[in-house]
Amino acid sequence: MASSERNPKMNQPAGRKTGKAAQKSQTRKRAHTHETATGNLANAVESSRSSNEEIQPTIGEYLIRRLEESGVRHVFGVPGDFVLHFYGMLQDSSVEVIGTTNEAAAGYAADGYARINGLGAVCVTYCVGGLSLCNSVAGAFAEKSPVIVISGSPGISERQHNPLLHHKVRDFSTQRDVFEKLTVATAVLDDPNTAFREIDRCFEAALRYQRPVYLEIPRDCVDLRPAWPYQRKEILESSDAKALSESLTEAARIIESAKQPVIIAGVEIHRFGLQKQVIALAERNGIPICSTLLGKSVISEKHRLYLGVYEGAMGRRFVQEFVESSDCVILLGTFMTDINLGIFTANLDPARCIYCTSESLRIRHHFYHDVPLQKFVGGLKRRKLSMSASPVEIPVRDDGLPDVTPEEPLSVHYLFRRVNQILDENSVVIADVGDSLFGAADLCIHRQSEFLSSAYYATMGFAIPAALGAQAANPKRRPIVLVGDGAFQMTGMELSTILRRGGNPIVIVLNNHGYTTERFLQDGPFNDIASWNFHCLPALLGGGLGLEVRTCGELDQAVETAIANEKSFSLINAHLRPDDISPALSRLAERLSEQV
Amino acid sequence: MASSERNPKMNQPAGRKTGKAAQKSQTRKRAHTHETATGNLANAVESSRSSNEEIQPTIGEYLIRRLEESGVRHVFGVPGDFVLHFYGMLQDSSVEVIGTTNEAAAGYAADGYARINGLGAVCVTYCVGGLSLCNSVAGAFAEKSPVIVISGSPGISERQHNPLLHHKVRDFSTQRDVFEKLTVATAVLDDPNTAFREIDRCFEAALRYQRPVYLEIPRDCVDLRPAWPYQRKEILESSDAKALSESLTEAARIIESAKQPVIIAGVEIHRFGLQKQVIALAERNGIPICSTLLGKSVISEKHRLYLGVYEGAMGRRFVQEFVESSDCVILLGTFMTDINLGIFTANLDPARCIYCTSESLRIRHHFYHDVPLQKFVGGLKRRKLSMSASPVEIPVRDDGLPDVTPEEPLSVHYLFRRVNQILDENSVVIADVGDSLFGAADLCIHRQSEFLSSAYYATMGFAIPAALGAQAANPKRRPIVLVGDGAFQMTGMELSTILRRGGNPIVIVLNNHGYTTERFLQDGPFNDIASWNFHCLPALLGGGLGLEVRTCGELDQAVETAIANEKSFSLINAHLRPDDISPALSRLAERLSEQV
Repeated sequence: MASSERNPKMNQPAGRKTGKAAQKSQTRKRAHTHETATGNLANAVESSRSSNEEIQPTIGEYLIRRLEESGVRHVFGVPGDFVLHFYGMLQDSSVEVIGTTNEAAAGYAADGYARINGLGAVCVTYCVGGLSLCNSVAGAFAEKSPVIVISGSPGISERQHNPLLHHKVRDFSTQRDVFEKLTVATAVLDDPNTAFREIDRCFEAALRYQRPVYLEIPRDCVDLRPAWPYQRKEILESSDAKALSESLTEAARIIESAKQPVIIAGVEIHRFGLQKQVIALAERNGIPICSTLLGKSVISEKHRLYLGVYEGAMGRRFVQEFVESSDCVILLGTFMTDINLGIFTANLDPARCIYCTSESLRIRHHFYHDVPLQKFVGGLKRRKLSMSASPVEIPVRDDGLPDVTPEEPLSVHYLFRRVNQILDENSVVIADVGDSLFGAADLCIHRQSEFLSSAYYATMGFAIPAALGAQAANPKRRPIVLVGDGAFQMTGMELSTILRRGGNPIVIVLNNHGYTTERFLQDGPFNDIASWNFHCLPALLGGGLGLEVRTCGELDQAVETAIANEKSFSLINAHLRPDDISPALSRLAERLSEQV
Repeated sequence: MASSERNPKMNQPAGRKTGKAAQKSQTRKRAHTHETATGNLANAVESSRSSNEEIQPTIGEYLIRRLEESGVRHVFGVPGDFVLHFYGMLQDSSVEVIGTTNEAAAGYAADGYARINGLGAVCVTYCVGGLSLCNSVAGAFAEKSPVIVISGSPGISERQHNPLLHHKVRDFSTQRDVFEKLTVATAVLDDPNTAFREIDRCFEAALRYQRPVYLEIPRDCVDLRPAWPYQRKEILESSDAKALSESLTEAARIIESAKQPVIIAGVEIHRFGLQKQVIALAERNGIPICSTLLGKSVISEKHRLYLGVYEGAMGRRFVQEFVESSDCVILLGTFMTDINLGIFTANLDPARCIYCTSESLRIRHHFYHDVPLQKFVGGLKRRKLSMSASPVEIPVRDDGLPDVTPEEPLSVHYLFRRVNQILDENSVVIADVGDSLFGAADLCIHRQSEFLSSAYYATMGFAIPAALGAQAANPKRRPIVLVGDGAFQMTGMELSTILRRGGNPIVIVLNNHGYTTERFLQDGPFNDIASWNFHCLPALLGGGLGLEVRTCGELDQAVETAIANEKSFSLINAHLRPDDISPALSRLAERLSEQV
């Protein structure tokens, strides 16, 4: 909050707007004058400026400029009165506002967008909007997806004597207090003289930590301008050159002498854009690569050195055996989460591991501090290694369709094999939580970073809104969405927004009539859910294509129809037996049920 | 957390269960043994008990017992692995678990349930469940609705070395940290020797403050038993007898000498069960009563002394004039929120007010401390007052249907007048935010406490899930739900759960094609929403009755059909012009647009 003595005069003089600002004001109904209670909050300056001097942008303008510069071309959200003026400004900018049916979905969409685009944003109103985002933003935090959360809030001038304004919970700081727990940086932009620096600090934190940040704008501060010009400063990441050099030498020595080295490339390799370097490291030295479930598709799964997803006992046997018998496992940007580790069925001896993430570097049982992931990966790639390992022969995967008659009831196994066949260079696979995810682990993703899932935080309902975000980020990719019936009931109505925008995902609802994953832990009537005619959704929404399948032959047919339907979403209601699950889920359920 | 030296032995010996516990264990797949890392966390005792000694309940059993004793017969939620074992226990108790499509809806349902039942509860899994509740619980906090939030969490024994367990955000305390901001009491039930006291403390706080509380159970603590018997202690509310007596004398004197006293009875009169006392106070002394929008229907609106809803310039002129020309306004349990005050168009001079809530008592410009609302209202009722005011003549309201032809396009005015006609002793009206709420202010509610709305926190999407909760709390009341198209898109799919349970609300979607309230503040494409064929929802859900109306005659017909359909929900898709709004909204929008 501003406190020093500054010119207490209002700014944003109507006659002194830049062309853009002037244009914006046309959509507004009246001139906004901002009278604040304290006077020194709304300090601004137009007085001591010469006519040559550049007019400083307003807080709202600067924030939009930063979004634009950062490549954020879409913002997801739901409008509300405390953020309405900023919505008007977004509308007049190059940033497209995508209105969702509710805020939770906007959060997932922004997260999906960020995973493809490198940065995403969501913009909502105070508390009723922001607090509806908590779970989506928590998921982005847990899985390192950089989302800028923008929230309007009551004007500073409205807050005198702590009135009971609508949307207020406990006090005016409640929403920020909550987001302090769910983001890596927060700021309330109530002072134009510090707001730009605060915006920059939060954007930089989002990119550096690849996690969400929170920016709140009291509605009477949107149009405030700073008193003096602002100079952006680059924030340099701390790094210990000697620790880096020593760690690289040690790592190189271990890799060179290894008989069977293997790289496990995690989700951070994607988040920090290090795919090329990791691939170069692998190719130069003939080291095979695994991914994790959360990091699946971090490199193309068609790559000749790609082994598969490593996930302990949940994964394919060849991958597990190769990794666990390796004498040098190079984990790069991998989170050791329970699901990534096959619910702790993974067997990785630290004495054989080089383990580098954005947060720490451990070689065998010792740690190096201040060694950034980027520098470690880059340094390793540049080293000329004299490898002693012999070339690896990677067995060809059996991806063929099972031999069935068209009348055979549809099985999970057949469904995933069929989906695998339709994947191509233009697909992005988005799997919701449950067997949609576990079964999807074995799909073969053609490109880099074209598999999205909440594979660590495991929040149901991620997939459909994430598909909205993914296709906004890259309209050339067609989402193939795998979602359970329970997860669909949580957020599936976001197909409404997808329909409005002309998106064409192929959505396959794995309809097994309940929370199947949980049935294998502890069953009860609480795992039953209502039975929807998912394929009837187009009638409600007024568009889209709905298909219902019960047999393998019907699935084949429906898939063809869906592929041909390029103009709208296609939804395939795929009936499955409640007890039919993928082998991975069967192994996982067994493991989890020991802990319920 | 437990720390002192206690018997580190595990409890819940398989052979020593009570009948109920034994029965419960049949639904579980195996005997649970709880081995904790620290040993002294899972302290429990079976050793030093004589055979006559009563076996103490487990933490889970005690919590269920408290729910049952408090009259909570239904718990809303979505299961998940960290809470699955407790779900199994609930299933075997007298408490019915109502599974919703997602957690946000479960929160609204529990809130609606609490408003009718006096206490509600929601039970979810860790983080993905709990953090999805933030907004619903914040609404319950803001509007004083006592909801018990129960969340499972990872077992204490699973937390060693801070592993990355699924659903974890930042650290294991994140979820509780968030709920500290949104509730009046929180507890993590990780010690059987303090858990019962903690449960009692939270239940008492929920009832005393009429606000939500948060209880978290690590999954390996559910079956733990305390080492010694527990004695519940009543917590006495502090109260200053002398301040009470002086305040009553002063208030009585002011009321007696007033020429035109009036009571404004707020939502707390309902929450604390003081309706009868307030009515007695009014009847004995011939004092007319108003309600507020948030407290609407706190007494029957058929009562001969009932004036109407006081909401400043937003409300009916007669009510505004009567209240604002009164020389003694007795505000009882009323929140002075912006919406209750007609966005601060209310004109109430504190010098003429006696203002008592559960939080404070102000007479004119001075305050009394430690005077509980219950005691003040009770004391005032018992006083024999010598009134000097003359009896008031309350004008009969014009509630008649406008004179229209059946072909006339449906208007907001006609719609609300028509709804007013179908209200009877068995109705509970639930209005969502927007014109559904403002237009509903003039409906005449027959019974006490049969109008629900998020009239202060103003969270869109409250109504449909709240109808689920309301009908669970009292199946004899038939909900009449008024909801905008935007709000319906947020949570309307909860009709799925209503259908499953055989509920029969009449849902009227005020379909004005966008966020109409906001159009009057600042319009833009962001206020447009997708156009749904709401009446086609039954096809998707496999049940329910859908009707579409565009004219007054069609509405009449649809209303008759809906009333006759007693077996399932009826949904009327009522097309309205986007610019057709209630007079109250028109006045409100004008006022709000000055601040956007």
